[in-house]
Amino acid sequence: MINYYKYPDKETWGTLVSRPCIDSSDLKKSVKKIMRKVKKDGDRALLKFAKLFDGVKLSTIEVTESEITEAANFISTDLKEAILLAKSNIECFHRSQIEQSRIVETMPGVSCWRKSIGIEKVGLYIPGGSAPLFSTVLMLAIPATLAGCREIILCTPSGKKGKIHPAILYAASICGITKVYKAGGAQAIAAMTYGTDTIPNVFKIFGPGNQYVTEAKKLASQKGVAIDMPAGPSEVLVIADESAIPEFVAADLLSQAEHGPDSQVILVTNNMETAIKTEHALNHQLKKLPRKSIAEKTLSNSRFIITKDIEEAINFSNCYAPEHLILATINPEKLAEKITNAGSVFLGNFSPESAGDYASGTNHTLPTAGYAAMYSGVSVDSFVKKITFQQLTKEGLKGIGNAIMTMAEAEGLEGHKNAVAIRLK
Amino acid sequence: MINYYKYPDKETWGTLVSRPCIDSSDLKKSVKKIMRKVKKDGDRALLKFAKLFDGVKLSTIEVTESEITEAANFISTDLKEAILLAKSNIECFHRSQIEQSRIVETMPGVSCWRKSIGIEKVGLYIPGGSAPLFSTVLMLAIPATLAGCREIILCTPSGKKGKIHPAILYAASICGITKVYKAGGAQAIAAMTYGTDTIPNVFKIFGPGNQYVTEAKKLASQKGVAIDMPAGPSEVLVIADESAIPEFVAADLLSQAEHGPDSQVILVTNNMETAIKTEHALNHQLKKLPRKSIAEKTLSNSRFIITKDIEEAINFSNCYAPEHLILATINPEKLAEKITNAGSVFLGNFSPESAGDYASGTNHTLPTAGYAAMYSGVSVDSFVKKITFQQLTKEGLKGIGNAIMTMAEAEGLEGHKNAVAIRLK
Repeated sequence: MINYYKYPDKETWGTLVSRPCIDSSDLKKSVKKIMRKVKKDGDRALLKFAKLFDGVKLSTIEVTESEITEAANFISTDLKEAILLAKSNIECFHRSQIEQSRIVETMPGVSCWRKSIGIEKVGLYIPGGSAPLFSTVLMLAIPATLAGCREIILCTPSGKKGKIHPAILYAASICGITKVYKAGGAQAIAAMTYGTDTIPNVFKIFGPGNQYVTEAKKLASQKGVAIDMPAGPSEVLVIADESAIPEFVAADLLSQAEHGPDSQVILVTNNMETAIKTEHALNHQLKKLPRKSIAEKTLSNSRFIITKDIEEAINFSNCYAPEHLILATINPEKLAEKITNAGSVFLGNFSPESAGDYASGTNHTLPTAGYAAMYSGVSVDSFVKKITFQQLTKEGLKGIGNAIMTMAEAEGLEGHKNAVAIRLK
Repeated sequence: MINYYKYPDKETWGTLVSRPCIDSSDLKKSVKKIMRKVKKDGDRALLKFAKLFDGVKLSTIEVTESEITEAANFISTDLKEAILLAKSNIECFHRSQIEQSRIVETMPGVSCWRKSIGIEKVGLYIPGGSAPLFSTVLMLAIPATLAGCREIILCTPSGKKGKIHPAILYAASICGITKVYKAGGAQAIAAMTYGTDTIPNVFKIFGPGNQYVTEAKKLASQKGVAIDMPAGPSEVLVIADESAIPEFVAADLLSQAEHGPDSQVILVTNNMETAIKTEHALNHQLKKLPRKSIAEKTLSNSRFIITKDIEEAINFSNCYAPEHLILATINPEKLAEKITNAGSVFLGNFSPESAGDYASGTNHTLPTAGYAAMYSGVSVDSFVKKITFQQLTKEGLKGIGNAIMTMAEAEGLEGHKNAVAIRLK
């Protein structure tokens, strides 16, 4: 079932780090059509698409305030407590990302600073489908709130009965979100891009989704709306040495494999025995998994790579740039320092990916498909823009005035020079 | 010449904040063609386009090391000193943006942190054209170096004689850039996207340019290369009250107007007299400007807006989201606190835009066309990605284990639950 690659040549790495290629030419056309329809017909189009795609006849798009506040009654105390604990940890870590404004005097009388300001209007998208992803509500709404975004809206498709899962509404309500709309797929992204009578347009759109949502976000970004990052199927890479516990590694690989058949699961180890024992554990654990058939499909595309040493394993991982990276090794702290490309890193035997998916405090909205080489995961940064400021005294301008005038003249911009000269006359 | 708008209704603001619309359908086609050609023919295509577009027959694309180091001999001591002073201030402000890694214990035994790591390979584009923009070299190369990017390359078109302006090479050399290539326009962006025999591909492309460059960067971003931000023509908005000095305001408006006929120049004031006096000063100063004809064209599209009070002026400015904002008012510090959308803000009578363009220390690569509502200007942040890390002790995992398992189960992800359960057994 598992594909082994023993001591692969560096020349083959290009293939080994490749992700499944998705053909999206047909998709593009349908998404463009959906976007155009929503732009033109607004709410009417949303109701039509809800019937067509989600099989639900909605009477209204907006979730009422009481629906949101009453959601707490429909979920267990255990789940509420779990969500509150997760919220507290996510808040704690994300609060540390808030940047304080600090004035820097670059020269006497020349003060520069920058200030983070929440993006005024942001839209969060939470997919429907097989699982109610209330954890993603926390991962997006908490940094949005900490960033000080003034208008935070949330779109998510309703179930067949026209209701939204109470855990999603509960997570939204404890984060202070009051505007929730029943809209899913590309049509939800279109609504947040153009605005409808019910759903306001936003400046930046966040959140995961299927290929339609991803394509719609791409199109939205061409229409002048910002998006969190390009998205693709989820993935994990585990680096394991002889100290790794095969049962733990197998459990981590499976927790990724169950996401969807397009997920990627990679084990890189310098120890063949670890690989073989992990495969045994995989087969054993797989049997008991409810989402067994999905996981099996993923595993058939998975790769077990045997390297000569751990150094090479790290190099391979940096080349792959995984969304999630687990270091199941001796001294993971030391290895962590050599990681240059990854979304989120999990150190040691007691840091499973699930911890970061739900409750350690880090964000689980992360760059996939190799984008970790140049994009960061979602953080408070994603919800702000940083404005720079400068204030010069007359003495300050005197201090840099000649330099400005000399440079402006050399660039052929006399008007720029004159703006200084006229002040120093 | 100037278009006045006295007490415009809020309903008309949408039109007043609009930017000149650029039709780019033909452009898209040509740029796509250029990109394809460079992808296929590499260096050969670059040499061909240099001849076709820049009228220069190049023998090599790479600038030699000695060309770079000898550039210092071809520019004046004054200019060298000016560039060094600007470099020092830009370095000082951008160094303050480097984020230190800090471990946050979200719960006992649950440690989370994030680390900024320079994007490995970045490409800087410096346009050719009427002026050698060596100041932009500083604005991009300094943060790239501070971020720790390992490979920084620079593309810029050569002049008719196949040489690059020595001030550009000098600025590159003092920033430690050793790889400079003679390539301009969309073809340079294509080269950095796909790589050629001479020019390596990069992970992120930075820098301004004409419509062709902008379109090529857009296409590059669809091919999986990150870009600094969507770009458009430069713009300034000045908020002035009765304390403003009309000659200074006029000089600032002209320093923007001389950039290009598609630039935008807006004055917002609560004082008609200030507006009229500024117009007089404009007409007077315009006569002496070498780039008079460009500035005149820009001014014919400019807007002078009279508001009832300064509060309304601020609201209008936030709605416009200017690239550059000058506060020529009493107590600019107080007004600055109300600014929510802008690229860079200049406070008071002695902070002309030229200061930030060259030497105050702030970056001059800023969001235009209203993108300041959701994008930040270039900073050290633009050259790094932030990786999150987490390390849990067994006790740490025990502390959050139940929450993770409860949430995973509620989301229907048994594999995620199992990754915790197996460790706590």
